[in-house]
Amino acid sequence: MDSSKNKHSDHMTEFELIARLAEVGASSNVENSESILIGIGDDAAVVSTPFGQTLLTTDAMVDGVHFRSIDERWHDIGWKCAVSNLSDIAAMGGIPDSALVTLGVPPAASADTFAELYSGMNEAFELFGGQIVGGDVVSSPIMFVNMALTGHPSINASGVPICLLRSEAKLDDLVCVTGPLGGSAGGLEVLLSGETNPSGEILIDRHFRPVPRIEVGNKLVAFGVRCGMDISDGLVGDLEKIAKLSNVEITVNMANIPIVDEMMLLFGARSITLALSGGEDYELAFTAPESVVENLTAKKVEFSVVGRVTGDGSTGAQVIVVDEKGNLHEPIRKGWDHLNG
Amino acid sequence: MDSSKNKHSDHMTEFELIARLAEVGASSNVENSESILIGIGDDAAVVSTPFGQTLLTTDAMVDGVHFRSIDERWHDIGWKCAVSNLSDIAAMGGIPDSALVTLGVPPAASADTFAELYSGMNEAFELFGGQIVGGDVVSSPIMFVNMALTGHPSINASGVPICLLRSEAKLDDLVCVTGPLGGSAGGLEVLLSGETNPSGEILIDRHFRPVPRIEVGNKLVAFGVRCGMDISDGLVGDLEKIAKLSNVEITVNMANIPIVDEMMLLFGARSITLALSGGEDYELAFTAPESVVENLTAKKVEFSVVGRVTGDGSTGAQVIVVDEKGNLHEPIRKGWDHLNG
Repeated sequence: MDSSKNKHSDHMTEFELIARLAEVGASSNVENSESILIGIGDDAAVVSTPFGQTLLTTDAMVDGVHFRSIDERWHDIGWKCAVSNLSDIAAMGGIPDSALVTLGVPPAASADTFAELYSGMNEAFELFGGQIVGGDVVSSPIMFVNMALTGHPSINASGVPICLLRSEAKLDDLVCVTGPLGGSAGGLEVLLSGETNPSGEILIDRHFRPVPRIEVGNKLVAFGVRCGMDISDGLVGDLEKIAKLSNVEITVNMANIPIVDEMMLLFGARSITLALSGGEDYELAFTAPESVVENLTAKKVEFSVVGRVTGDGSTGAQVIVVDEKGNLHEPIRKGWDHLNG
Repeated sequence: MDSSKNKHSDHMTEFELIARLAEVGASSNVENSESILIGIGDDAAVVSTPFGQTLLTTDAMVDGVHFRSIDERWHDIGWKCAVSNLSDIAAMGGIPDSALVTLGVPPAASADTFAELYSGMNEAFELFGGQIVGGDVVSSPIMFVNMALTGHPSINASGVPICLLRSEAKLDDLVCVTGPLGGSAGGLEVLLSGETNPSGEILIDRHFRPVPRIEVGNKLVAFGVRCGMDISDGLVGDLEKIAKLSNVEITVNMANIPIVDEMMLLFGARSITLALSGGEDYELAFTAPESVVENLTAKKVEFSVVGRVTGDGSTGAQVIVVDEKGNLHEPIRKGWDHLNG
């Protein structure tokens, strides 16, 4: 690419690019667009077909950006690629169906590498549903893996298919997460430091072997939750997406955020920063009225209440973090820009 | 990647890798695999859902491999990426539905580039059906574009959904193609030579602006054809896939292969080599009994008969090319290996 002609090169963020592409998309396909129920902006697209609703999502991993080929953890990389897609289906409360896998294959790659990668994907699909049905293999100077995954919505107590959406948070909803945060980011730091100890290994495992919350997502739909997403880019950054699409203000109570025990051991007070901003935990964040949340507890769904929807947007669609005394805390880093890191 | 450990690096072909991955796939997902009607090996996967059949395909393009960013033909690259996927749906006789687009974005890329790319995709979808419903944007040292596309089968005269398959060629079937061949490969040669003239421009256009044969594919299904695929890797190489999966011998009559007029002007006798082996024309190849082929002609479907299924496999699942005198012609190059060029 002739970068000298790219005036915007130093400043383009992932969000600017997606907004621009959404504009291009909106200006065309007018005839077809009625069938898109949920387009760009949520975890997965939702498309209406004559036969029901289909969920569609895609996620790619690139050598040197999302993984390091020198680690040679091919099975884990396959697992994580599948999980990042499965988690998008979980984020919608859906059920995974069919995966297509594209492999970018460098000149020196071996078939063993990709066979291990595939076995990692298959392990995840066997545990959480879905299956690889096809794909593409292309020559590439660098290794990359792209997965596209389809799914379908699960049904609520009335038998109606429902998707968890980012746009459904309401004033006074409780804000919840399905498990401890920051473990993946902590694991990455341990990995990069090169130091090993048992606590560190547990965190590295959280980095390489995240779990998609398919089952919990289905339960959330079954028990009446309407607003949710997965935490792939960091709690604060991801809740900001809910705040923006629901036009609400969310207040997070820092002291209530669940953190993996090993994080406190290794990172002390900095654990909370990693929990607020670290990506790739793949837990779900959701909001629901108190009565629905109480029912979830009664039904033994596991989660933690971490905040509340405290404004209807007249105060700004934003996320505020407060400490245990109610003092404002400024998060050091808000989420992950996939283009600028 | 640590290439020193990759023993197979010098020899792995696309076909070996796909076969290896198919093995890994076959050893798992036993519970789910009943829903896969057509898996790896055809142009698109066919999956059975409670609501009907879904077609799924994916195709990627990598800078320096499938396009040259220095050409800056972003709109055309978007068009071609969409067409390569649409053509897989056409190859099954199907109807395109929803596309997911993954963009690998290098540090110096501009939003304009990707907006143009998207507009090229959208142009193709507006003409041939389908629409972009979502995607992913990732940082990457090199630019790549991946598209996954879903579709559904069209229906035959009895109202039954039918997919054109590579495995349905029968002894004595006529072998046909839907349009002239070699134009894309010729256009690429003209482009790389840097020489320009009106005939060359027409061929370059065939390289950058191929047409997916969605409408013809649907007609083939409607009028009783059962065996087909798209010609993306070269006529001989692609017919070999039909020969293998149908376990038949196919004889191609070189003199009957339709060739773009400009090819003869620029390449003379070498046109036939490009028509036999050049990729990315995206015409359909199909086989059918004579009665079905006669009916297609009566229904004004445009195609050329280029050969016949001359053996039931006892002579070997193979493709033979003969000249107008019936003498054996050895094609110079049989198809395209996506990993080794």
